[in-house]
Amino acid sequence: MTDTSADLVILGGGSGGYACALRASQLGLSVILVEKDKLGGTCLHRGCIPTKALLHAAEVADTARESDQFGVKASLDGIDIAGVNTYKDTVVGNLYKGLAGMFKSRKGVTVVEGAGTFVGPNTVVVDGQRYTGKNVVLATGSYARSLPGLEIGGRVLTSDQALNLDFVPEKVVVLGGGVIGVEFASVWRSFGAEVTIVEALPRLVPAEDEFCSKQVERAFRRRGIKFKTGVRFTGATQTDSAVSITLESGEQLDADILLVAVGRGPNSAGHGYEEAGVKMDRGFVLTDEYLRTNLPNVYAVGDLVPGLQLAHRGFQQGILIAEQIAGLNPKPIDEAGIPRVTYCEPEVASVGLTEAQAKDKYGSVETVTYDLAGNGKSQILKTKGAIKLVKATDGPVVGLHMVGSRVGELIGEAQLIYNWEAYADDVAPLVHAHPTQNEALGEAHLALAGKPLHAHG
Amino acid sequence: MTDTSADLVILGGGSGGYACALRASQLGLSVILVEKDKLGGTCLHRGCIPTKALLHAAEVADTARESDQFGVKASLDGIDIAGVNTYKDTVVGNLYKGLAGMFKSRKGVTVVEGAGTFVGPNTVVVDGQRYTGKNVVLATGSYARSLPGLEIGGRVLTSDQALNLDFVPEKVVVLGGGVIGVEFASVWRSFGAEVTIVEALPRLVPAEDEFCSKQVERAFRRRGIKFKTGVRFTGATQTDSAVSITLESGEQLDADILLVAVGRGPNSAGHGYEEAGVKMDRGFVLTDEYLRTNLPNVYAVGDLVPGLQLAHRGFQQGILIAEQIAGLNPKPIDEAGIPRVTYCEPEVASVGLTEAQAKDKYGSVETVTYDLAGNGKSQILKTKGAIKLVKATDGPVVGLHMVGSRVGELIGEAQLIYNWEAYADDVAPLVHAHPTQNEALGEAHLALAGKPLHAHG
Repeated sequence: MTDTSADLVILGGGSGGYACALRASQLGLSVILVEKDKLGGTCLHRGCIPTKALLHAAEVADTARESDQFGVKASLDGIDIAGVNTYKDTVVGNLYKGLAGMFKSRKGVTVVEGAGTFVGPNTVVVDGQRYTGKNVVLATGSYARSLPGLEIGGRVLTSDQALNLDFVPEKVVVLGGGVIGVEFASVWRSFGAEVTIVEALPRLVPAEDEFCSKQVERAFRRRGIKFKTGVRFTGATQTDSAVSITLESGEQLDADILLVAVGRGPNSAGHGYEEAGVKMDRGFVLTDEYLRTNLPNVYAVGDLVPGLQLAHRGFQQGILIAEQIAGLNPKPIDEAGIPRVTYCEPEVASVGLTEAQAKDKYGSVETVTYDLAGNGKSQILKTKGAIKLVKATDGPVVGLHMVGSRVGELIGEAQLIYNWEAYADDVAPLVHAHPTQNEALGEAHLALAGKPLHAHG
Repeated sequence: MTDTSADLVILGGGSGGYACALRASQLGLSVILVEKDKLGGTCLHRGCIPTKALLHAAEVADTARESDQFGVKASLDGIDIAGVNTYKDTVVGNLYKGLAGMFKSRKGVTVVEGAGTFVGPNTVVVDGQRYTGKNVVLATGSYARSLPGLEIGGRVLTSDQALNLDFVPEKVVVLGGGVIGVEFASVWRSFGAEVTIVEALPRLVPAEDEFCSKQVERAFRRRGIKFKTGVRFTGATQTDSAVSITLESGEQLDADILLVAVGRGPNSAGHGYEEAGVKMDRGFVLTDEYLRTNLPNVYAVGDLVPGLQLAHRGFQQGILIAEQIAGLNPKPIDEAGIPRVTYCEPEVASVGLTEAQAKDKYGSVETVTYDLAGNGKSQILKTKGAIKLVKATDGPVVGLHMVGSRVGELIGEAQLIYNWEAYADDVAPLVHAHPTQNEALGEAHLALAGKPLHAHG
């Protein structure tokens, strides 16, 4: 018989919930983890992993298409979308198998399948069975949102449906130029589609430093990805064969499909939070910096909590909650120190503050921009892009922003620099491996320290 | 008229020499830089840059060949070697143009074209003209070595000729399983050749931790790259159409070409060093940790100085010499902290000590190996590989070793960890971006700190 009480009852087995469960069990705590679908949540099944598989297939298509500029005679004959989906599903399946196996072998964690309702103060009900925890962690994640009046169905999709399309569209409109919007736009363009992004804010990837937006917009123009920024969507109508989108400018766009990528809402409805007295704001669960809700011993984690909606933020928060319950006194998380990667082509990677945020916080800042044109490895990859660093005047590096193919992998170094509060002078003497792209980070720090190596003048 | 005296006379315009010149001029010193060929030296013209261009063309070929496993219908029809060479030469040409432009616009640096001879104590002679420096920097670099009795020519090549082959060989023997050997083996295999590496030492990439050798050997076996380790070469004979190589085992290997990749020797002969009284060992110039030779105000830099033969080591040493002359009192360089990347497929990247070196130094060490099978992004790329960390017991991380596609870019983070003497506990709380390959570095540090997140048990 399943235990019905534990040190922690966790409602939701996505990134935040499962990381909390794993760390708690490692610390000797007993855990009941409730999940209605599959362990791994949005990230593994409908988010990070499958989209990055599509993006890699897109990279493969681009590489084949552009192979002759490297002297390789290859031809791109088309996209076998069934094959792409098999590849994607196999990656997801293997990682899921690994995760499920991890939970099977993990002592102290009981996984309960089913939809849970929090009935407070320390109880979750699943199919009529009550599970009580000394602590309860709300981890029900998020869902792909739409706009009022815009119904999902048919040719109007969110990322959930877009991930499992069984055809390559010829003409797409993407509503929303944030992370999800630009990633799908990038995939479909690589697959040969005509793509138009519509974004109400004045620039693509509007959460990033303006520098990144400009770089991405320039690259997208080169790639033939169209975008309309600062324009509101007013409506969409669809027939069996097409969807028609109207903008407040009066313009009308016709497409095979409309992807609605206007963000993700908190998955809180129907889980009993409000009824149990959890303090909320527009569906999000409010917490303090220790992820504690207003109710004693009730925590919340991940996309349910206002802030960056990133799987690894969920990991980090889940770990923090577990360590806190185990009495380890972990430090609160600096949200600005959580690395951010957008995997469109070119990639965008950043950590720390934008220049505007840094000015607000420090008053006086200095910046350096280093163009990848001076970086040997980027020239070999034939990617354009740049790195921008922001430092507080007489202070540490507080913002690192990068755009270019594959720069997502440079974020590991960047996050250490930000989180360890390094000064440009700490990084400058460490000459980087030649020829790498991370060498550009090194050169940028040399420049920020006032001693650029490869520079004119 | 050209100035014939300066604060520094630098003999050689490769990575070490030109970096020294740039940094010195930045610090207000006057420089005469003597170069008989083109600024940029081996690295730019016959080393790092052109080989990495070939390796990227090889990656493009592999991507096209294996595209169907990602659902992309592409076919590899062949290698247009003239096109590959044009691409490679264009990358080199553009970077050279950038470098030459930098020197044109740089105040205080005079570039003298010609072969220089050091005549001591502070003078270099070029075409009969004497140039005197308050300081002299010997920076004549290295050349591709052969073995006694093995003459280069015809079908027997070093990397110099291999870089400019106008055909793709069908059958190659590579003599030497170090960095240069495995990189060329990797390129030719990707281009479709049958490749056999012969290495006298017991393993490929013998300068790396044994872990890396095992990973590379396993990957090369999967790729169909043959190798014979622990076997000495005894001779080679060539005809118009083939080359035949004999091993001490009595075995005979036939090939279209033989690449001799047995290391690089110091380019010191004919430059007057010995005659001027510079202390040397087997052609290398000996220096102290400040790169000072036995003669006053005479320094040496780069491949001429015993140690790692890497362009960025030359950069770092050149900068150190310039800063020293300018009176900035720079700290000596920890050679173990210089990042090392081998760009074969899969890549090898390391910094710090091997496990064996760490045991020698610290007595007691701990290691963790993290398999990329658990890393989402590596699964998406379909690369195998692993990361090994070495730490002194109760001490900092002292060695980071990585094998896998694209892991060369993770070395930026790894080198900060090593050079900043970080403990596993300093890295562990910084949850990495998901899904990236650098996340594997994060997981490995979590494991090394005793709190693995994604782990069985």
